[in-house]
Amino acid sequence: MEFKVNSKEFEKLLSKIFPAIPSKTPVQALEHFKFEIKDGLLTVSGTDLDISLKSSINVDTSENFEGLVPAKRIYELVRSFGDTTLHFQIDYNHALFLVTDKGKYKLFYLDTEQYPQIPSFPQEATEDVKEVTIEGPDLRKSLEQTSFAISKEEIRPAMMGMLFEFESEGLRFVATDGHRLANLLNKKINHQIEDKYVVPERVISVLMKLLDETSVKVYLNKTHISFKLKDIELIGRLIGYSYPEYKNVIPVENEFKLKINRKELNDVLKRMLLFSTSPTRKIKLTLSQSNVEVFAEDIDTGSTATENIMCEYDGEPMEIGFNAMNLSDILSHMPSQEEIIMRLSSPQKAVIIEPTKEEEGIELLMLVMPIRLNTQNVS
Amino acid sequence: MEFKVNSKEFEKLLSKIFPAIPSKTPVQALEHFKFEIKDGLLTVSGTDLDISLKSSINVDTSENFEGLVPAKRIYELVRSFGDTTLHFQIDYNHALFLVTDKGKYKLFYLDTEQYPQIPSFPQEATEDVKEVTIEGPDLRKSLEQTSFAISKEEIRPAMMGMLFEFESEGLRFVATDGHRLANLLNKKINHQIEDKYVVPERVISVLMKLLDETSVKVYLNKTHISFKLKDIELIGRLIGYSYPEYKNVIPVENEFKLKINRKELNDVLKRMLLFSTSPTRKIKLTLSQSNVEVFAEDIDTGSTATENIMCEYDGEPMEIGFNAMNLSDILSHMPSQEEIIMRLSSPQKAVIIEPTKEEEGIELLMLVMPIRLNTQNVS
Repeated sequence: MEFKVNSKEFEKLLSKIFPAIPSKTPVQALEHFKFEIKDGLLTVSGTDLDISLKSSINVDTSENFEGLVPAKRIYELVRSFGDTTLHFQIDYNHALFLVTDKGKYKLFYLDTEQYPQIPSFPQEATEDVKEVTIEGPDLRKSLEQTSFAISKEEIRPAMMGMLFEFESEGLRFVATDGHRLANLLNKKINHQIEDKYVVPERVISVLMKLLDETSVKVYLNKTHISFKLKDIELIGRLIGYSYPEYKNVIPVENEFKLKINRKELNDVLKRMLLFSTSPTRKIKLTLSQSNVEVFAEDIDTGSTATENIMCEYDGEPMEIGFNAMNLSDILSHMPSQEEIIMRLSSPQKAVIIEPTKEEEGIELLMLVMPIRLNTQNVS
Repeated sequence: MEFKVNSKEFEKLLSKIFPAIPSKTPVQALEHFKFEIKDGLLTVSGTDLDISLKSSINVDTSENFEGLVPAKRIYELVRSFGDTTLHFQIDYNHALFLVTDKGKYKLFYLDTEQYPQIPSFPQEATEDVKEVTIEGPDLRKSLEQTSFAISKEEIRPAMMGMLFEFESEGLRFVATDGHRLANLLNKKINHQIEDKYVVPERVISVLMKLLDETSVKVYLNKTHISFKLKDIELIGRLIGYSYPEYKNVIPVENEFKLKINRKELNDVLKRMLLFSTSPTRKIKLTLSQSNVEVFAEDIDTGSTATENIMCEYDGEPMEIGFNAMNLSDILSHMPSQEEIIMRLSSPQKAVIIEPTKEEEGIELLMLVMPIRLNTQNVS
């Protein structure tokens, strides 16, 4: 069989699927794109077993074909051409010839039997499949503000994903690593679902790169989630462990309020990181009515740093310790408003950080655990 | 003692010296900048023992000072400020305070006794010190076209440097790894020197980043080379081993001439790299009067690639093998003329590659060794 495609169009197709190809895998089949030609539609897919990507273009051929094509080699070859016509000639003896005006290239394809089954989703909701439509920019922003807090530690596998909690008011995104928590309720997402799902970090990070201005159809069954974009589908395996009861750690009565400039505090934290001791990155905040003193000490060298920032604080004078990196990560992912509110009650209790003004339809709550101040170390 | 400097000016100074600071070293002193204040001049230097960098600014103080300041910490701290005034306060108890409008930072400095001696060069030639002035852009271009061929293999230490060969006609730059050789005579460099020196790759690569439009004064003694630029000095240790007699490998009678488009051949080579077998990267060129056929085969998978390029060839039909990477490296470092000349005589002998037209004052000769074609492997 044979067909022709434009090299630029084909490069675009392969570049979308390539992120799903594992760079190192003991399973040789996974180093391949799956090519399926059926009724003039060429579908290319790739998977690392955790995520799968799938996209199609029309090709002018009446024959059908299925085969696994070496992903890296064909992708880099196609990328190396300018704008030209690629002439594919496939024989049924596992040889695939690619002929251009430059030359002739012979590759070998494998049979698709060796390839894992990629779950497919119907075009609409069924008894087993839930469906919701989300605007691309809206979804991306919600994920950007929360996904940084996903845990990287394998001992608690549920926390290595993000909680998608469908509530009557909208869709809530929650991520935590036990030291900090990001919690965003997006009320602009309308749905008919009453359930929650844990979506792995890898699905989130690949999705964030795909999202554009168009809307996304999200499909969910018990084991997988599918994001259908304009010209590509991302299918991810869900995490089977249940998510921790995060609501229990959010304090309801944090009576003291600290209002402070977000960027100013974040800039200070970045300097404090140069002086704080690894791996705790401990800094001390001394709160008074109109001033926060920030202090860090590198125990190994004795170097210290002290800065002062203006604030509005209505609570009791307090010394409270934080991991500067955790606090800075949170500030970096808040909306770009001038000021934030920190709500606290004691140096031992979780601190809530919120924007001073809610964005329309968005409820954002960040939480960070303080760390114990040992007066022997941080004077 | 104390003095004040502008943060931006100070950041610029430190950024110039920082490349000499080793990222990992068992010698703690080398992780520091050396600060020397003498008669109102602050000189900052850094060294990894192979190269040293040195630069100065004026500061308003009447006291003198010498000390080793933690390089990474002070550099990153200074970089984190906007445009502001840095107020240094140094006590003689190894404490260095940096005070800004933001805060106060305490660092500790070491005594300079622990620091290695950096050789210093006089401002003009002496009996032991040779001197030559070279235009910055001229030097950079000569190094760019040749340094890629420097060997990375430690078994032949002289070839891990570049030969600077002072001839009556100018300065010759030679680099080789035994498989390919770059040889450039720059006749625009006037000098009174009759000697040759082997300059380590690290000196060349750091120098190339420093070179700008201004001229450079180069000083040489038996053991070191110094490059004095407008506002920085680079001092490098020379390689003590003698350079191989490279002239013996340059064939004088390569009677066949192949004229071919440089970019076209290089683009083909990049695609051939995708099909050639690691680690030899072998490709076969089949030469005829007006056509070169390029062929590669990946023995592991059986994949092949064939391309044809137009040429002008006046020799006998020939099949000749190359390492595609070596050949491509050479083509990438030739002047950006349309065509090149390859001069060859047999599939076993070194091939000379030259530009079709000499640049004014520059004689450039590249050389590449063919690799044996084993007809069992590359048919």
